[in-house]
Amino acid sequence: MNKSVFSHRVIYADTDHFGVVYYARYLEWMEAGRSELLRKGGISYADYEKMGFFVPVVKLDIEYQSPARYDDIVDVETRIEKIGNSSIHFTYDIKVKDKIIATAKTVNVFITRDGKKVNVPDEVRNILK
Amino acid sequence: MNKSVFSHRVIYADTDHFGVVYYARYLEWMEAGRSELLRKGGISYADYEKMGFFVPVVKLDIEYQSPARYDDIVDVETRIEKIGNSSIHFTYDIKVKDKIIATAKTVNVFITRDGKKVNVPDEVRNILK
Amino acid sequence: MNKSVFSHRVIYADTDHFGVVYYARYLEWMEAGRSELLRKGGISYADYEKMGFFVPVVKLDIEYQSPARYDDIVDVETRIEKIGNSSIHFTYDIKVKDKIIATAKTVNVFITRDGKKVNVPDEVRNILK
Amino acid sequence: MNKSVFSHRVIYADTDHFGVVYYARYLEWMEAGRSELLRKGGISYADYEKMGFFVPVVKLDIEYQSPARYDDIVDVETRIEKIGNSSIHFTYDIKVKDKIIATAKTVNVFITRDGKKVNVPDEVRNILK
Repeated sequence: MNKSVFSHRVIYADTDHFGVVYYARYLEWMEAGRSELLRKGGISYADYEKMGFFVPVVKLDIEYQSPARYDDIVDVETRIEKIGNSSIHFTYDIKVKDKIIATAKTVNVFITRDGKKVNVPDEVRNILK
Repeated sequence: MNKSVFSHRVIYADTDHFGVVYYARYLEWMEAGRSELLRKGGISYADYEKMGFFVPVVKLDIEYQSPARYDDIVDVETRIEKIGNSSIHFTYDIKVKDKIIATAKTVNVFITRDGKKVNVPDEVRNILK
Repeated sequence: MNKSVFSHRVIYADTDHFGVVYYARYLEWMEAGRSELLRKGGISYADYEKMGFFVPVVKLDIEYQSPARYDDIVDVETRIEKIGNSSIHFTYDIKVKDKIIATAKTVNVFITRDGKKVNVPDEVRNILK
Repeated sequence: MNKSVFSHRVIYADTDHFGVVYYARYLEWMEAGRSELLRKGGISYADYEKMGFFVPVVKLDIEYQSPARYDDIVDVETRIEKIGNSSIHFTYDIKVKDKIIATAKTVNVFITRDGKKVNVPDEVRNILK
């Protein structure tokens, strides 16, 4: 199953003085979602780093539909939409109590420490199957 | 001139263990950029709040082209691209030493505290002129 | 048992370019620890807010002994050390794989929305028993 | 003069849903304060890193007296209180409109990348004179 679910209970640190989750905080939970999804391929992100690979976000689109609030449990469902030669396209459904409150997409690329693109490892491709 | 420039020197808090600015931190400086731009219209964001108006981001697109690093001075140039009935479209050029390292767009909407859309105030429209 | 354990797997967002968890991030997990401990008294922090009570930190001491790193699971053990008329003294053992990496204390006070001190509710006192 | 002043205008990202600055955010501005103070000695923190030195916080005490709020300008006055063989004791007065809202102390140590303590460089000692 090519999906991970990362859950986070909203704390004060996540909220702003309008009373809702600050728009940048979702990106942290999306990072955790990607990390959990890669782990499903059998190799953790930390393992990739040991091999000298990194997977930064190069493009992000997000639509915020409804706010999340203090003490809500936010579930981030992360999926792989597409795998290119060196890129992975992730999609995210961000939910509170099964209602989608935001949707997002990121494009990530596999690179070496000095920034050279490398092929997406087979373990990652296997998540899709 | 319908542009604001917000500058920030990168601190440890902004960076991650790959040695670059974490992708969510740019959103904070973009917030500061929007805030400075609205202030140019003669009414600060804080003033709008006192009137009962809020301007959340409902859509965000960002492309990360090169990393910023510790102690870099990051300049966020914010412009208003378009103003709708209740929405404002902002664009952002994010630079280090005059080189663009990321570009972004957000759509923000003017709402009341209970979430009802309201018309964009004239002071904001005047920034464009 | 007057203890809560909050666990968090370290993500990129938590780390800095020296390769370790940034010193301010622990405060977020300590907040989650306090929140979980109050919940054990039968009333969540969110419930207290609905009653008009807030519990800000007025004093914090923390000693950092060893760093936590990316992908580590950090466990925050939170205890109530002492309860005054309107104050609670929390202690925190912050661990990675059962090794203490930091210890902290906070003093929190129960206040109303407009900042007046109120007595610590009995539900919180019951956690100690 | 052995003092630096770092000023920051509070943005949404800094605040929480109680309407005040979140307690961990001050630590970021204290970091910026330390950094500005070291720069006065003639060598920036970034320069020390190039020499292989790092200066982590090993102990932090902070007292929060009054809240800072959205759009406030927070001034962090950082001073060196004492210099040991390998440690520096910093003190911080955190102010809004010249009123102290929080005071803090940190102990930082000069270490190499692999964590060995080294002597505080003379440039830093010169700040005190």
